[in-house]
Amino acid sequence: MVLLLSSVDATHSRTSDLSIHAFANIDSALDVFAADRTGKADFALESAGGTVVSTRCTRTYDSVKSAISFFGITLAHWSRSPNAMLQPNTHLGECWCFHGSQGQAIIRLAARVHVTGVSLEHVSKLVALSGRIDSAPREFVIKSLESEFAEDGEVLGSFVYDINAKPVQYFPIKPRPNGQPTRFIELAVNSNHGHPAYTCIYRLRVHGNMAEDDQN
Amino acid sequence: MVLLLSSVDATHSRTSDLSIHAFANIDSALDVFAADRTGKADFALESAGGTVVSTRCTRTYDSVKSAISFFGITLAHWSRSPNAMLQPNTHLGECWCFHGSQGQAIIRLAARVHVTGVSLEHVSKLVALSGRIDSAPREFVIKSLESEFAEDGEVLGSFVYDINAKPVQYFPIKPRPNGQPTRFIELAVNSNHGHPAYTCIYRLRVHGNMAEDDQN
Amino acid sequence: MVLLLSSVDATHSRTSDLSIHAFANIDSALDVFAADRTGKADFALESAGGTVVSTRCTRTYDSVKSAISFFGITLAHWSRSPNAMLQPNTHLGECWCFHGSQGQAIIRLAARVHVTGVSLEHVSKLVALSGRIDSAPREFVIKSLESEFAEDGEVLGSFVYDINAKPVQYFPIKPRPNGQPTRFIELAVNSNHGHPAYTCIYRLRVHGNMAEDDQN
Repeated sequence: MVLLLSSVDATHSRTSDLSIHAFANIDSALDVFAADRTGKADFALESAGGTVVSTRCTRTYDSVKSAISFFGITLAHWSRSPNAMLQPNTHLGECWCFHGSQGQAIIRLAARVHVTGVSLEHVSKLVALSGRIDSAPREFVIKSLESEFAEDGEVLGSFVYDINAKPVQYFPIKPRPNGQPTRFIELAVNSNHGHPAYTCIYRLRVHGNMAEDDQN
Repeated sequence: MVLLLSSVDATHSRTSDLSIHAFANIDSALDVFAADRTGKADFALESAGGTVVSTRCTRTYDSVKSAISFFGITLAHWSRSPNAMLQPNTHLGECWCFHGSQGQAIIRLAARVHVTGVSLEHVSKLVALSGRIDSAPREFVIKSLESEFAEDGEVLGSFVYDINAKPVQYFPIKPRPNGQPTRFIELAVNSNHGHPAYTCIYRLRVHGNMAEDDQN
Repeated sequence: MVLLLSSVDATHSRTSDLSIHAFANIDSALDVFAADRTGKADFALESAGGTVVSTRCTRTYDSVKSAISFFGITLAHWSRSPNAMLQPNTHLGECWCFHGSQGQAIIRLAARVHVTGVSLEHVSKLVALSGRIDSAPREFVIKSLESEFAEDGEVLGSFVYDINAKPVQYFPIKPRPNGQPTRFIELAVNSNHGHPAYTCIYRLRVHGNMAEDDQN
């Protein structure tokens, strides 16, 4: 009987612990969610100082959907600039789209950084009008460039965005062999998930450790 | 005694399952939260292509609160346009207000859609300055219109927004008898929750399945 | 044996309750999160009618980071206005910065209010580029002013922002001895967490109960 009672007590204390644990967990999950959903610094974020300095020969796609209308009269057709992918808003349509399935963008980061990874985000399939997100990028390469005018750069990693996984996907990057920090990043998209006309990038975050020289 | 031990084990495994379940649940709750809080496509969303094309004879309410001031000098009084209710920002004041308790808005959706429901959102009572949200809509009707110039439309549903329930409220809509998709939606508000001067709409989402013709 | 079985049942029901409790808890945690993260009305919120009417002699810091560039050519340097701290966006850089470690701002609230507390928010350390947030305010005072031209006001409270705690920190304020509501609030920052050049304020929320005269 002693063992029996102890069993009940142990169970009780275990569920209480779990209860506290579950509540603490919601709290810390929300902390990370509120910290840009990743809990990681984003050196490409526009409000922090990141900016797209070139898109090479990529042609921005001017969606006919993005028309400024005033009570039925269309005043202007417009498209979002490449900097849209360095901004936190990622509702449907808040993205940079380009013609075809291949495109590039060179980003001047907010500081020189030892890149440890990137996060590529697309809109959730749940909220896509057609239920499909075939305009999402598939194969893409991240490069480190010496300047915004560099014709090519050092490949930091080649990755695949998975439209059946979470909207925000993290891709780890190994340290550069020369140990140098990076100021210019190129995102080179090589294919999409099947859309015949265009590819859209909702957000690219660049993570890492700031070069020590820049910290003072 | 064997049974006793098995009881302890069963309990342990049950709490462990629960623990995993609880963590997975936080994660999926945040996924839906991040997916526009509903996990559903919104065909009225402005950034996706939705736009208000008419408000019939409804008079937008120019709140004296919405004044652009520069260090104490009021430069301009302004009001938010009806398109505010197709935008994701729903902090206090980020809404479309109209005089009285009755108003209409005709929305051109981003695509032709078999409407399955709408979500009407008001600001949370928790953050209202007076603690009351009597400017919230109460009775409202959703109609399908042939065009933005149609004098009347087919009623898809008549609903009541409940100020004691959650801020985002979902109202299911049955398929149209003729099986046709809808491009123009009318929101017709017939009463509010008691505010004598104006009624405010924070956000209207329109959910459904895109017409097959539009998917290609 | 009866006791044993009852033990199992009790445990089972307890974990089920917990399960429901945990799910309900996620839901209500998200409700508060969605309600401006505090579940409290913010009388300083710009969209609700709050505005900064003076910053006394405080010099806004023009960060070289905040440059409007167009494909590598810097078009303009700019800085965010003091009203940035009355806006809900608090991504890195979405703040008001001033020179040095001491600065003031006088805010005209959206209504006359019996202030019960303020929430001061800084960006999360998790997303800071250097991993440090030494530009955060440390010691600060909240005052009630008779007008925007008042040279000094009644101290409502003196507080310290802790950079090792949560980003959004709540500071309770006692009722004024004279029982009068407040329309003008002064935030006076007296020190920061060590940054030699500037101090940044991401967001100040002012909570309380609206004066009864204003409710009609």
